[in-house]
Amino acid sequence: MNTKVGNLIYKGKAKDVYETEDDQKVIVKFRDDITAGDGAKKESLSEKGFYNSIISSKFFEVLEEAGVKTQYIELLEPSYMLSKKLEMIPLEVITRNIAAGSLLKRFPFEEKQEFEPPIIQIDYKNDEFHDPMLNEDIIIALGLATAEDLATIREITLKINSIVKNFLKERGILFPDFKIEFGRDSEGNIVLGDEISPDTCRFWDMKTWDVLDKDLFRKGESGVMDAYKTVASRILDEEDKKKWNLNI
Amino acid sequence: MNTKVGNLIYKGKAKDVYETEDDQKVIVKFRDDITAGDGAKKESLSEKGFYNSIISSKFFEVLEEAGVKTQYIELLEPSYMLSKKLEMIPLEVITRNIAAGSLLKRFPFEEKQEFEPPIIQIDYKNDEFHDPMLNEDIIIALGLATAEDLATIREITLKINSIVKNFLKERGILFPDFKIEFGRDSEGNIVLGDEISPDTCRFWDMKTWDVLDKDLFRKGESGVMDAYKTVASRILDEEDKKKWNLNI
Repeated sequence: MNTKVGNLIYKGKAKDVYETEDDQKVIVKFRDDITAGDGAKKESLSEKGFYNSIISSKFFEVLEEAGVKTQYIELLEPSYMLSKKLEMIPLEVITRNIAAGSLLKRFPFEEKQEFEPPIIQIDYKNDEFHDPMLNEDIIIALGLATAEDLATIREITLKINSIVKNFLKERGILFPDFKIEFGRDSEGNIVLGDEISPDTCRFWDMKTWDVLDKDLFRKGESGVMDAYKTVASRILDEEDKKKWNLNI
Repeated sequence: MNTKVGNLIYKGKAKDVYETEDDQKVIVKFRDDITAGDGAKKESLSEKGFYNSIISSKFFEVLEEAGVKTQYIELLEPSYMLSKKLEMIPLEVITRNIAAGSLLKRFPFEEKQEFEPPIIQIDYKNDEFHDPMLNEDIIIALGLATAEDLATIREITLKINSIVKNFLKERGILFPDFKIEFGRDSEGNIVLGDEISPDTCRFWDMKTWDVLDKDLFRKGESGVMDAYKTVASRILDEEDKKKWNLNI
């Protein structure tokens, strides 16, 4: 890795952000830490940061090719993603294609009920208030985004959903839901940040409905990294695998 | 009271609905029961139904005069309101002009922070799921209302807020927030139902900021009925008071 890792400027639950010598670029380091239940459950999972950085890079590349602006510049080496520096918007934008998880505890949907159009839910990324669900009026009153920003976020989110859902479908994976975060670049554009990985998405095998994401960890089941590797194996092409010496 | 009270068709936490001989009309009986904390705290408060029916009738009359369709036909006698039969929509539409109550527990607003425009929050009236907050996508996916219904509900709600806020201001009362419910009449129109009373609104004295609503009961304070009578006294004219022999 030629790029010098500078000072730590942000430490999240599973990623760190470091300065670089270019003040418009940062390095996002994907760590092995894995958490669930509002941080109540926390472990370290060997190779998780490695694989999530590769998976997330792949999704960002696919999205960039389809015209979606992301923070992604390049994967310097597994775990270390060179990214545009963004001013992050503290919203967790959740898109639901199939009913699963907390949605079923909070509202009377049927398990595995399909949503067409998808449901978009926006939570406030705020540990003190336990990431509460918001609505548009509350987001605006809190000064987190304007109505115009929200329309943009919604439009980009639906586009991302459509692109990733189709990409995964061709690889035998269902896309029940996912959480993304946005930031503003130096020109004020709203840009996709954070990550798209089994930590932040539900992925189900299309034939067996096997879970291929963090739900395995949430439920205390084994084979978490095997599932993450299965996702990597399905979405990466031979060139990607060769580049990082992946034997999956 | 000349109208015959028929069979009980709905029993809520503080009101009953009875059939009448006209299948398009019902009698809403305001009871003395008062509850708080998702039904955890429950008491009977003498005269509450009497006064709330009069207060609610007054607000419905004011709104009807300003062109807002309501369920209200007439107050047969205190506690018994003759109303149009509505198919109720199970949404609690909450409008907030000043930050108070649960909003402060859930989101980082300042106490008594003013909202201009107001915040509209819609909760699902569902005991099993503890009245969760919804967003537009979830409301539509649950089949509770269409996007068009929601636009109508929002428009009527903002109009109601404006009318009632100004009406109260002239009578020395602040209107921090209120909860209303809507139903559909026999022609499918969305019509204001339920009640507008100190059980469902926050009312604060404009000079002293004294609480004149159910928050006194929630906090276990005394003088609850005195506060309700203060609201009645301020909003009713001499003719109203004479009609029901009120000595307030």
